[in-house]
Amino acid sequence: MPATGDMPPEEFRRYGHEVIDWIADYFEQVGSYPVLPRVSPGDVAGQLPELAPEEPAEMSEILADFRDVLVPGVTHWNHPAFFGYFAISGSGPGVLGETLAAALNVNAMLWRTSPSATELEERALSWLRQLMGLPADFHGHIQDTASTSTMVALAGARERAGLGVREDGLTGRALPRLRVYCSEEAHSVVEKSCVTLGLGLSAVRRVATDEAFRLAVPALRAAIEADVAAGDLPIAVVATVGTTSTTAVDPVPEIADICHQHGLWLHVDAAYGGAAAILPEMRHILRGCELADSLTVNPHKWLFVPVDCSALYLRDPNVVRRAFAYTLDILKTSEGEAATNLMEYGPALGRRFRALKLWMVLRYFGRSGIADRIREHIRLAALFASWVDVDPEWERMAPTEFSTVCFRYHPPGASDAELDRVNQGILDALNESGETLLSQARLRGRLSLRLAIGNIRTAEEHLRAAWELLMETAMMNDG
Amino acid sequence: MPATGDMPPEEFRRYGHEVIDWIADYFEQVGSYPVLPRVSPGDVAGQLPELAPEEPAEMSEILADFRDVLVPGVTHWNHPAFFGYFAISGSGPGVLGETLAAALNVNAMLWRTSPSATELEERALSWLRQLMGLPADFHGHIQDTASTSTMVALAGARERAGLGVREDGLTGRALPRLRVYCSEEAHSVVEKSCVTLGLGLSAVRRVATDEAFRLAVPALRAAIEADVAAGDLPIAVVATVGTTSTTAVDPVPEIADICHQHGLWLHVDAAYGGAAAILPEMRHILRGCELADSLTVNPHKWLFVPVDCSALYLRDPNVVRRAFAYTLDILKTSEGEAATNLMEYGPALGRRFRALKLWMVLRYFGRSGIADRIREHIRLAALFASWVDVDPEWERMAPTEFSTVCFRYHPPGASDAELDRVNQGILDALNESGETLLSQARLRGRLSLRLAIGNIRTAEEHLRAAWELLMETAMMNDG
Repeated sequence: MPATGDMPPEEFRRYGHEVIDWIADYFEQVGSYPVLPRVSPGDVAGQLPELAPEEPAEMSEILADFRDVLVPGVTHWNHPAFFGYFAISGSGPGVLGETLAAALNVNAMLWRTSPSATELEERALSWLRQLMGLPADFHGHIQDTASTSTMVALAGARERAGLGVREDGLTGRALPRLRVYCSEEAHSVVEKSCVTLGLGLSAVRRVATDEAFRLAVPALRAAIEADVAAGDLPIAVVATVGTTSTTAVDPVPEIADICHQHGLWLHVDAAYGGAAAILPEMRHILRGCELADSLTVNPHKWLFVPVDCSALYLRDPNVVRRAFAYTLDILKTSEGEAATNLMEYGPALGRRFRALKLWMVLRYFGRSGIADRIREHIRLAALFASWVDVDPEWERMAPTEFSTVCFRYHPPGASDAELDRVNQGILDALNESGETLLSQARLRGRLSLRLAIGNIRTAEEHLRAAWELLMETAMMNDG
Repeated sequence: MPATGDMPPEEFRRYGHEVIDWIADYFEQVGSYPVLPRVSPGDVAGQLPELAPEEPAEMSEILADFRDVLVPGVTHWNHPAFFGYFAISGSGPGVLGETLAAALNVNAMLWRTSPSATELEERALSWLRQLMGLPADFHGHIQDTASTSTMVALAGARERAGLGVREDGLTGRALPRLRVYCSEEAHSVVEKSCVTLGLGLSAVRRVATDEAFRLAVPALRAAIEADVAAGDLPIAVVATVGTTSTTAVDPVPEIADICHQHGLWLHVDAAYGGAAAILPEMRHILRGCELADSLTVNPHKWLFVPVDCSALYLRDPNVVRRAFAYTLDILKTSEGEAATNLMEYGPALGRRFRALKLWMVLRYFGRSGIADRIREHIRLAALFASWVDVDPEWERMAPTEFSTVCFRYHPPGASDAELDRVNQGILDALNESGETLLSQARLRGRLSLRLAIGNIRTAEEHLRAAWELLMETAMMNDG
């Protein structure tokens, strides 16, 4: 290898083709891999040299190690029977978009550091906004994950509270305790954001939910009023459209009323559920969201875009810009206000060209193709729920709003404690089988199995196979 | 297109090969593109439909639009005469690593959600630690950018201050004003992090620098003592190894002494400069860093890895884990302490398989290949500095520690104000030419041109051409 320069173009071409061929084969055969790999902690690391490599290696050798050492330790999120967490898919056009973005390797921090990256990001997020039926005055940009999107939204709320937090921070003066509200079923990202922002875990008021795991509006109102009476300063409510455990949809219109009344920032976490609003028959899930100050939806969740890609919509992007814009001399440019510099809307300076993969996915499938796939996932979930509902030995644990089903094995006469034990056994056996992967959720203290459909390869046959395996496993475990 | 499923594997294979071929050609020809695209704000967006696509498009059409609409609006960070900001390179093996990571599309949040991703991340960061000569007890993980790495490090400092910030936050009680120190030349990421963390811009004390733009230790000592006397609470110092403007190296051993004496967290921002420590003759730049609490180096800057990939090393990862670990039921796993769950070490839950590209780059080039390339960049910068130094009409504006040269055109007899105007004219004309891209820096109030070498394709010929263009442009502008 010469002492300068990159991999020669012809070598890149040859190994690039090899990588693409491997991926094409992998996508075709991924259903034959175990979903969860059969490795214990340390197994993969044990096959990797402890000492850093001194000399260059041949790409053929590196790719062989990828196949022989790394792939056997990969959890296959692409497997059509992956029903864990939120099942996701980095579709073919998304993978090609990511490949091109890595090759261009631009930084979309300033307009000037890659005009196409900034302008495509704004355009692609305008398209997604239209597809979801969000208001035209919502301004969208991309963050890495919903963790960051939520944190940025709550930073906007903190800034808008009028305490001069950007300049003066929260210490060295007497400030009331700030409060953020969400339901018991909201994602832990609310707590993590509040820790990051200096509000602390105790700033978060988790409000009770109703029988369908939706935020209980009277409980929210009571919590805010109690805090105000105690001298605290409520600043924001995080409502969820598609909670993590049961995919419940909080009553956003009523929550928006309360926010309006108390001057609170309303952030909607639609990271998973928002995608469904692309279907006309599901548009209702975003009812009231036109009143939000911010909303996040993750194209890397249910819109077939590889991780990471979280869309953050802001009604007034200038609040967030006021919180975060801070420009070094070296980054000052001559375009002035004519150009948008997206680094001003969040904590990170470095920004990948994530819009490319989103644009390729939206173009390749079109609204109709995306809607077909999401509709099919919802149909499959309803079908699975119907199998659970008609079987007296199984019980559904929550309404099925989208493509995720919470349920448990429930032979007659068993106590909740016994059921927890039996269902944990079923889950462990199932996941160890390598045939499928499910998650668990604890609902009102009871263990629920949780099957999430979102993989682009999942078809009815995979669901039937999982159901049969569940029934077999239950029989084996119900000793 | 059927209503379900991904792009068919054979179609992925065909277009994947087309994408790889385009990249191979692009890498070969990138020197013939204009570095800065010849577009004005809105030009690219104006060629993209305002309405979201309804129907699927053929991949051939999408790739044609990529080439015809997007590429002409791209700033070519890959161009061998890209000398702006910090010049970076996503090398061939890095691009292939990113492609495979996008295809696997795993989330490295938990060990179980992809054991290979977690174990490779720890192993690759151990290799990088060895290559840089960092202590064996530094624990490394990957964040997206140095913005996040710095914020996480300062969150660690905030947590270690013993105020119970994770639980109780910073409001609702009397706390002293927290203080963070860095030099006048440190990156604005310190301010952005302090805004995010609720410390505020005014928490940041920017300390004077010496004649070589290094943090002045007596000024640091005086600032800390004054703040302590005023009842403030110093928590951290951010030292920089390779500042953004001039690539100065702060006196870390002396700073570490002060930190030790006052119980402050020492974070070292070696995002750019740290990579040079791979060369034995440059190892001295990390002198004293073995005493730091945290250190960040960005493989996406000068280690030929595509954005984003920031390595964060922590002496006591448990402090950061204490700040950020917060686990939902759905994410609880049975491996217990035997498995590392990397999501606990930062704000983000979703984590891409970034270790794959880093591993492929370290393997492909090996220590020797990486050292050769960095050494050549340093040689080129010294060569350019020598051209500036021997020419009486040009002036070097700062010591050249690494591969970045600060200089200006300085015909005899001109005032600083005239020189600012002339040099701004040279910079604008140069960047508009499309032949090369430089940045500016303001040093002690004077405008400096700034040439950063870091692109893997940059050879002596590109540097000579830039130097000739600079001299021609100066002659034209010096009417």
